[in-house]
Amino acid sequence: MTITGQNYIAGETSAEGIETFYSVDPRRKSRGEQAFYSATESEVARATEAALAAHQQMRSYSSTRIADLLDEIVTQIGALGDELLHIADSETGLGLPRLTGERDRSTGQIRAFAELLREGSYLRAIINSGPPTIRQMQFPVGPVAIFAASNFPFAFAVAGGDSASALAAGCPIVVKAHPGHPATSELFAQAITAAVAAQGFPAGAFSMLQGAGIDVGQWLVAREEIEAVGFTGSLRGGRAIFDAATARPRPIPVYAEMGSINPVVITQAALAARAETIAAGLVGSVTLGSGQFCTNPGLILLEDSAASQAFIAAVTEKMSAAPAGVLLNEAVAAGLESAVSQTTANPQIRLLTGGEASAGEAFCYRNTVLQTRAAAIRADQGLQTEHFGPVTLFVLCDDAEDLSATIKSLEGNLTSTLHAEADEAVAGLLSLLREKAGRVIWNDFPTGVAVVPAMQHGGPYPATTAPATTSVGTNAIYRFMRPIALQNVPDALLPAPLQDANPLGILRLVDGEYTDGMA
Amino acid sequence: MTITGQNYIAGETSAEGIETFYSVDPRRKSRGEQAFYSATESEVARATEAALAAHQQMRSYSSTRIADLLDEIVTQIGALGDELLHIADSETGLGLPRLTGERDRSTGQIRAFAELLREGSYLRAIINSGPPTIRQMQFPVGPVAIFAASNFPFAFAVAGGDSASALAAGCPIVVKAHPGHPATSELFAQAITAAVAAQGFPAGAFSMLQGAGIDVGQWLVAREEIEAVGFTGSLRGGRAIFDAATARPRPIPVYAEMGSINPVVITQAALAARAETIAAGLVGSVTLGSGQFCTNPGLILLEDSAASQAFIAAVTEKMSAAPAGVLLNEAVAAGLESAVSQTTANPQIRLLTGGEASAGEAFCYRNTVLQTRAAAIRADQGLQTEHFGPVTLFVLCDDAEDLSATIKSLEGNLTSTLHAEADEAVAGLLSLLREKAGRVIWNDFPTGVAVVPAMQHGGPYPATTAPATTSVGTNAIYRFMRPIALQNVPDALLPAPLQDANPLGILRLVDGEYTDGMA
Repeated sequence: MTITGQNYIAGETSAEGIETFYSVDPRRKSRGEQAFYSATESEVARATEAALAAHQQMRSYSSTRIADLLDEIVTQIGALGDELLHIADSETGLGLPRLTGERDRSTGQIRAFAELLREGSYLRAIINSGPPTIRQMQFPVGPVAIFAASNFPFAFAVAGGDSASALAAGCPIVVKAHPGHPATSELFAQAITAAVAAQGFPAGAFSMLQGAGIDVGQWLVAREEIEAVGFTGSLRGGRAIFDAATARPRPIPVYAEMGSINPVVITQAALAARAETIAAGLVGSVTLGSGQFCTNPGLILLEDSAASQAFIAAVTEKMSAAPAGVLLNEAVAAGLESAVSQTTANPQIRLLTGGEASAGEAFCYRNTVLQTRAAAIRADQGLQTEHFGPVTLFVLCDDAEDLSATIKSLEGNLTSTLHAEADEAVAGLLSLLREKAGRVIWNDFPTGVAVVPAMQHGGPYPATTAPATTSVGTNAIYRFMRPIALQNVPDALLPAPLQDANPLGILRLVDGEYTDGMA
Repeated sequence: MTITGQNYIAGETSAEGIETFYSVDPRRKSRGEQAFYSATESEVARATEAALAAHQQMRSYSSTRIADLLDEIVTQIGALGDELLHIADSETGLGLPRLTGERDRSTGQIRAFAELLREGSYLRAIINSGPPTIRQMQFPVGPVAIFAASNFPFAFAVAGGDSASALAAGCPIVVKAHPGHPATSELFAQAITAAVAAQGFPAGAFSMLQGAGIDVGQWLVAREEIEAVGFTGSLRGGRAIFDAATARPRPIPVYAEMGSINPVVITQAALAARAETIAAGLVGSVTLGSGQFCTNPGLILLEDSAASQAFIAAVTEKMSAAPAGVLLNEAVAAGLESAVSQTTANPQIRLLTGGEASAGEAFCYRNTVLQTRAAAIRADQGLQTEHFGPVTLFVLCDDAEDLSATIKSLEGNLTSTLHAEADEAVAGLLSLLREKAGRVIWNDFPTGVAVVPAMQHGGPYPATTAPATTSVGTNAIYRFMRPIALQNVPDALLPAPLQDANPLGILRLVDGEYTDGMA
C-alpha cells in the first residue's frame, strides 16, 4: 500500500494546498517522512458538492444496496492486512493487541449496520389507512460531515461508528481525518474509496480530508451542502463546531461526543464486601488505553470513613505501581499536563500520586490519583474538567446527604456507575445517577462499550450536544435520517418498504398494529 | 369561570408584575376589560424551580399514572364547557364551528397520548442479555418550556400538542401563553392545574406564564432548569429562541415549528384532467382559517401554458369572490401587510387580486393572488418569505427543467404537494419534493393535519429547527425523552418496562427479536 499524503475527494486523490504536516511516533517523539497535505477551502467545496450530487442518487437506494456497500467496506478493510495495525501503532502507540481488538470491533459495527438494513424494521415504517392514507418511514438526511477522534483510530475515525452509521442511513460522508494518525486515515480512505467504486456507488459518497488545524473543519461545517455533523473529540473542539453549525443561516444538527468524567459512587457496604475487587477493577479501568477512553472513570465519590481511606490508599498504591502508558501525541500530553496543573492549583486538591510527566523518550504521564472533599467539587465547577489520561479524583463526602447534593451538582456524563450491595436501599441514588448520564452501570466499570442495540453512548451536555442520540449501537443511524410522511401517494410511486403488499416483509406499524404482513 | 389575568405558577395564581396587557376582539378591534399581568423574572424562576422539583418525583412515575393525568386534563377541559369557545372566539375571531372542531382535535390528541402510554411500546425498550446485560428505554428529559401559537388557540397552545407530548413524556411543563388569547390560555391553565391537583401530581408539573413582549420567553429559555423547548410561531421568534438556547453555557434543544410556504406543483396532465377541482380545492385550502395555517399552500409551481394561464385566472376569480376572513390580531394584520408589500415591491411580481387590507371594522385582508416567473424565485430568496394570511403566489416555469431547478432552490417546508396523473413519469419530481418537506402530498391539499402515528409535521429549516422530529402525532413525544442504558442493574432496581418478566407485557426488542414476552 502506498501512502500519498493526499486528500481523497470523490474517488480521486488531491493535494492542492501548501500546508503540510507529519505523523509523529509517540513512543519516540519522532516525525515520519511522509508529508500530509491539509485540504484547501476549494477541496472542501469539491468534496461537499460531490457529496450532494451523490445524495441525489443515493436517496433512492434500497437498504439492501447500502448493506452491500457496508459489507464491501469490511472486505476492503480486511484487504489492508496487518500493515494497518503496524502503521496505526506507530502513529498512536496504542499497541498491537488493542488495535487488533479495535479493528474487529470496527468491522463488527459496520457488519451490524448491514444486518440492521437487511432486517428492515429500522426504517420505522408506519401506515395509517385514513383517509387520507399517510405512510411514513426514515429517509437519509443528505451529506454528513464527520470529525474523527484521536483515541480510537479505527472505531471512532474514518471508518468508525459515525461513518458507518451515516453511510448505513444512506448518506454520503465527508470525513475530516484526525491529524494524529493521518497515514492510518489514508489507508481507511483507500478501503472505502475502493468499496464505493466496487459497488457502483457515486464517487461523491465518500471523501476524506486531511488537516492539521481548525480551518478545514470550519470550512466543512459552513458548507451549505452539509446536513448534519458527527464529531468525537474534546469539549472545546466540539463546542466550536456546534457554535459554527447553529450560527449558520440554515442551522444544522451537530452530534458531538465530547468530554466526560464518568462519576463512580461506591457505597460503604460495597467496600466492606469487596474493596479489593473494586480497587483492581477501577485501576484497570482508569489506566486502560493510558486513560484515553471517553468512558474513563475520572471521579470517584464515597462517604468518608476508615474503609474509604484504606480503599483510596490501596488504589493509590496500585496506580503508583502500574506502568505509565504511552499517550497518543504531544497535544494529548500537553493537554493532560495543563488540566492536572489547573486542578492541583486548587488548594482543596491533594495529589496522592503522579501529577507529572514520566521521564523517558515517549509521551508519557504518571498514573495520577487526586483527592478532595465534596464541598470543593460543589464550590468549583472547574473541578469537573476532564483529565484526558490515566487520572482519577476521589471525592470524600461527609454523609449520604452530602453525596446526593454532590451528584446533583454534577454536569452531564456519558456514564455513571454505582457499586453497591443488592440489599441496600439505593433506588434514590440510582435515580440521581440516571439524570447525569446516558448509561448507568451497576457493579461494573464504564470502559468497554458493548456494540449492541441497547447501548446508549451519549448523555447530557457537556458529554454530548444531543443527549437523545447515541454514537454507538445501531440506534446511531437515526442521527442521519429523518421521517417523511407520504400522503395519498399511489403504491407504484412508493418506496418498497411502504408499499401495501410489504414486498420486503419488514415489521411495520399498520393502523396501530405491529405486523410484517400487508397493509 | 373567573378570569383573573394572573399567571399560574405551580398551582397558585401570581401577579407580581406591573406590566399588563389586554385581549383584543379582532372583529371589532376592541380591547377587553380584563388586565393580564406579564410574568416577572422572579415568577419565571419560581415556575422553573417548581418544575425541577416536580421532575424529581415525576421521573419515576409509571406510564399509566401519566396517562391518568392526561385523561383528567381532557375531563377538565370538558368541564370548561362552551364558555371556552365563546371566549376563544372573541379573542381570535376564528368562529365557533372551527373552534368546536379544534377543541375535539385537541382533546383527541391528548387522549391519543394516553392510549400510547398504556400500550407501552413507545418506550422503545431494548434488552441485550450480554454479558454485560444492557437494557435501555426512553426516560423524560426534565422540565420543558413551551411557547404557544396564536393561530390554534387550542391545538397548538396551552393544552395543545407540545404540552400534551411533553406531559406524556413525563416532563413538567412551563407554558408561555400567546398574548393574542390570554383569557383562553387562562381557562386551559385552570383546567390543567385542576387535573394536576386531582391526580396528586406535584404542583410544579404545570405552570403558565402570560407575557406581551419577548422578555418572559427569553428569561424562560435561559433558566438552567429547562431541558428542552417546544415552540410554534414565526421564523423570527423561533430563531431568536433557538439562538438563545444554543448560546447557553449548557445548550438545550429547541423544537421550533416556524414558517412554511408549502409549495404545490401541478402538472399539465393534472390540469387537463381536473383543473376545476384543483382550483376549488386550492382556494379552499388558501382561505381556510383566513389563510392562517402553517400548512397554507403559498407557492404554486406550474409550467407556462394556456391551460396554466386559464387555471390562474380561475383561481384568481374564486379568490376575489371569496369573502375576506378575519385575521387573528393586529400583529398578524400588520405582518401580512408588510410581507405582501415587500413581495410586490419586487418588479418581477404581478398582483392579480387583493394585496391590501379590507375596509371595515375587523382586522381583515383581501384574498390575494400573486404571480411571477421561476427565474425570479431563484434570483431572490426573499420571495420565499411566508405571507401569513390568505395569499398565494403562482410561479410560471418555462419547462420541466426550469421547474426542477426551482424546486431544488426552495428552502425547507412543512409540506410539499404534487398534483399529477397516476400514469405520468413523476417519480423524479416526487423525489425532489421529498427533499424539501416533512410531508409530501399527492393530489390533495396540505391544510388539515391528521393526528395519526404516521403523521410527520416538521421539515427542513426554516420550517423547523429539528427536521427529524414532529410536533403532531404520537412521535412528538420523543422530543422530550432520551434513552438511558442500564448495565447489569438488578431486576428489583429496574423500572417495570425493563424487568425480565415484562410485567407490563409491552413490546420490546430482546436480543434482536421483537417480543411482548419475558426477556
